[in-house]
Amino acid sequence: MAAPDMDPANKPASIPLHDPDTAARQADQTDKQALIADWQTLHRVFIRPEDEGSKQTLIKYMEQILFGLHDFLNKHVGVTEEISLAELSRSYMDVEINAEPQKKLADVIEDIITDIAPRAVNVASPYFIGHMTSAIPFFMVHLKAISAALNQNVIKLETSKVLSVLEKQVLAKMHKMIFRYDDAFYREHVQNTRTALGSFTTGGTTANITALWVARNKLFPPTQDFSSIEEDGFFAAMQAHDLDRVVILVSKRGHFSLRKAGGLLGIGNRNVIAVDVDDNRSIDLEKLEATIAALKQDGRTRIAALVGIAGATETGVIDPLPALGNLCEREGIHFHVDAAWGGPVLLSDKYSPLLAGIEKADSVTIDCHKQFYMPMTAGMVYFKDPKALDNIAYHARYVNRKGSVDLGIKTLEGSRESSSLILDAALKIMGARGYGLMIEHGIETARIFAEKIKARELFDLVSDPTLNILTYRVMPRDIREKLAAADSGEIAALNRFLDEINKSIQRIQREAGNSFVSRTRLRLSPSDPYNVVVLRTVIMNPMTTPDILDEILDEQEMILSTLSW
Amino acid sequence: MAAPDMDPANKPASIPLHDPDTAARQADQTDKQALIADWQTLHRVFIRPEDEGSKQTLIKYMEQILFGLHDFLNKHVGVTEEISLAELSRSYMDVEINAEPQKKLADVIEDIITDIAPRAVNVASPYFIGHMTSAIPFFMVHLKAISAALNQNVIKLETSKVLSVLEKQVLAKMHKMIFRYDDAFYREHVQNTRTALGSFTTGGTTANITALWVARNKLFPPTQDFSSIEEDGFFAAMQAHDLDRVVILVSKRGHFSLRKAGGLLGIGNRNVIAVDVDDNRSIDLEKLEATIAALKQDGRTRIAALVGIAGATETGVIDPLPALGNLCEREGIHFHVDAAWGGPVLLSDKYSPLLAGIEKADSVTIDCHKQFYMPMTAGMVYFKDPKALDNIAYHARYVNRKGSVDLGIKTLEGSRESSSLILDAALKIMGARGYGLMIEHGIETARIFAEKIKARELFDLVSDPTLNILTYRVMPRDIREKLAAADSGEIAALNRFLDEINKSIQRIQREAGNSFVSRTRLRLSPSDPYNVVVLRTVIMNPMTTPDILDEILDEQEMILSTLSW
Repeated sequence: MAAPDMDPANKPASIPLHDPDTAARQADQTDKQALIADWQTLHRVFIRPEDEGSKQTLIKYMEQILFGLHDFLNKHVGVTEEISLAELSRSYMDVEINAEPQKKLADVIEDIITDIAPRAVNVASPYFIGHMTSAIPFFMVHLKAISAALNQNVIKLETSKVLSVLEKQVLAKMHKMIFRYDDAFYREHVQNTRTALGSFTTGGTTANITALWVARNKLFPPTQDFSSIEEDGFFAAMQAHDLDRVVILVSKRGHFSLRKAGGLLGIGNRNVIAVDVDDNRSIDLEKLEATIAALKQDGRTRIAALVGIAGATETGVIDPLPALGNLCEREGIHFHVDAAWGGPVLLSDKYSPLLAGIEKADSVTIDCHKQFYMPMTAGMVYFKDPKALDNIAYHARYVNRKGSVDLGIKTLEGSRESSSLILDAALKIMGARGYGLMIEHGIETARIFAEKIKARELFDLVSDPTLNILTYRVMPRDIREKLAAADSGEIAALNRFLDEINKSIQRIQREAGNSFVSRTRLRLSPSDPYNVVVLRTVIMNPMTTPDILDEILDEQEMILSTLSW
Repeated sequence: MAAPDMDPANKPASIPLHDPDTAARQADQTDKQALIADWQTLHRVFIRPEDEGSKQTLIKYMEQILFGLHDFLNKHVGVTEEISLAELSRSYMDVEINAEPQKKLADVIEDIITDIAPRAVNVASPYFIGHMTSAIPFFMVHLKAISAALNQNVIKLETSKVLSVLEKQVLAKMHKMIFRYDDAFYREHVQNTRTALGSFTTGGTTANITALWVARNKLFPPTQDFSSIEEDGFFAAMQAHDLDRVVILVSKRGHFSLRKAGGLLGIGNRNVIAVDVDDNRSIDLEKLEATIAALKQDGRTRIAALVGIAGATETGVIDPLPALGNLCEREGIHFHVDAAWGGPVLLSDKYSPLLAGIEKADSVTIDCHKQFYMPMTAGMVYFKDPKALDNIAYHARYVNRKGSVDLGIKTLEGSRESSSLILDAALKIMGARGYGLMIEHGIETARIFAEKIKARELFDLVSDPTLNILTYRVMPRDIREKLAAADSGEIAALNRFLDEINKSIQRIQREAGNSFVSRTRLRLSPSDPYNVVVLRTVIMNPMTTPDILDEILDEQEMILSTLSW
């Protein structure tokens, strides 16, 4: 393409930005123009749509998106429709970027609604109970649009102003929800520019990484020839402190982001030690104590953090936080609670006791895009000590100067949108009680579901719902009978066989597209030598009713009846 | 608050979700209700607004947000209005989460428009030329809303389907823009589930971290007793390979995220070595060669990566990429190009030659929320080798199983929104040429601005605009005269004095709220022993005209005339 004929000294100034007559005249011309990128079109793109007709079309589409996309999507239920992945891929092979514009905005949006949306996953369906992604309240889309329209960057005050101030307030609200310090504490810290009660992140993974990054750095105080691990690096830190190994402890149910953090931070993901779980499927305290004692023996291993899980991804199980907190206090270990999933349970008076002990944590991860029902991508990390984030502070000359209020000084991420605006608004619209109701619905519906599973002959409940997550497996009659009479070798073989049946049922149900449960692998009991395939459900959509759960089980029974062996 | 009276076994099923008569009846009742979170309200929150009246109010507001927020914001120009930060903070001290809902959605949105937006920063103003955050095309807000409404999570196929396929296509388009491999290469990799041409990230910082994470891991091949740094950790890796130190090389203009990456990855931010710049303000190749030679001397230091900058944050300067690429090839060093800012220049036929050599990179960072004019928060990282991201692959039992097409296997972040949908749509709406025009406007307007600065007696240009960024400082007549006759000690004192003048002018202009330039510190020439304060401008808003730039200089002269010394 040729270089455009453009002289910025004159052209931009010659377009009167706020003259409606001129705008209308230009709009008429545009309608007849081909899709050519020129200077005038570009200007309009920054101000308003091409013409009034386009604007009305856009409003029609955006109304659908802002108020009715759920309805729309409900016509296309399930994860997979008829078009297979391989076939789908064939439509997305072209790698050329078009030189000229290909489509008007309204056409692009129409394409998204007609081509993309029906081939996306209908995570909003009440039959979609397989993952931690679900329907979100319709107003979340409005709030996300507002946040995008403001386009603030909370990395620094100069590009965010009140949004930085608001973020500090929202962080304090959440900190109080977790740690419950007194009013004087929050008066001191809520708008304190020298301290940080936490940070918004882009998700639970970076929240966990941030917490463990702080924990790692705290391990290595300065010595005569050593300043900090952050400055001098991992190798120098280990030499200065005469150590061989740094570890992180978490139960076998720890989220994989913790292993990722171990790898990223130089700890090594093998040193993220997976402690066995007990009969409750939470961390086995005896084995944990034994592990710690063994690690302390040679004096050359340091424990960077013990992670308590408050809502395991696979089972929803909550570790015994009070005991873990006491243990960490006794041993001087950083106590991190991964409440990415379970954190918002604190807003339910009825079930917040399940999280008792979280206030003992040194750091806590909570996701916004999980049980705060916010759109992707937003998480949070909180620290009991308002100076803890100093361990990862970074400055630059043009932003984040020392002593500034810039929030980007103490975050893993750089530029960030204003997620606190959305959470703050949602809390005002829903109230703690509104969130509490949703939490209670999830937990209580999951309990009803567990009873239904137990009542059906063809199913076995594998993990009880502590929160709103449970696992189970399909158990054909003949296999159940054989298992009852089998020796351990036969049991293993039968379980392998059940694995295949459950994988098939999950896959066939997913591909049928009426509903979706996920699958994972778990040990049936702590002493079992192997994991079995289980079906996993996460009940967070308030539209998911017991009737729907019955339909899902019915469908699985029906699929089972079509399998032959 | 009391536990709600709720029986999920019955209540949800009793609400007919798609019965308009019932919905209307409920809506009437709601209008008269206090703001109480109850089960029926919650159900409506997930489906549609409280009543038709509310919906019309919402549409009015959302029209303003989707089409007119720029206009609205233009009434409140500048970074700071009358209310000071301390005063502002006093309104954001309350840390209680309300138990019951406080406001209806329409009221919350009205509050945002009347209270928050005017106290946010008007980054969309053409007078806001201080940072890399700017106006975005109005349609970006629509696209962000659509992405939020779909609420797909591209961590895995089961929560994203076509959006994962689309992401692979968009990654291939960008990869081709950078590396220009032949059609056969892209046919092989565009939808290949075993390879990855890159990854969307939540910003340039995590993109840079991802690139350097890969580079770090590549340094340490397995040995007999050592598997990988990712598994065994930094200390074991150094011991297995008999090393003392790992370093990253970048010029003094490197973004602070590179130091952060050094700290996070265990390399140590002191080992992110800042090489001097030369008279062109790009990396000094002689000094770089000397640094590499010195590092190689003892054989116990390994260079993880050399970073070439393609658009320095402070100056816009581009390092000599072809020379750096050749050097890295010769030395076997991972060559990372931080093109977070400059990457989209590749879409301008006229200026893409400025980035020649980028195709020699092993990895490249490009931000979406910078010169792709997307809303926060989105970045990208690309790798020449489609297997490079295998170095940071993570799996889990419930998602990201080995061999799956789940995109979350090879990303730093976990859950992620579908940013590729927005970039893909924007490329279709604007075309390469549309983006090219904006790039050209920025560069050419910055050049005009540089001429204006040079033509004014009271200003000194400090750094020329390679791209659309330049720095300068205010230079009062008497100081200029004194500098001409001063010895080196006097020059230092005069520069300190100029620093204070320039800091004052920048602050006063910012607080006046008509326009905004930022400030940083730079050496006037490489041999200077100290940095001086400079004013920094980033011209990316296509509405920023030469006339506006004259107004900004006029205002600075006016402010100068009010200062006395």
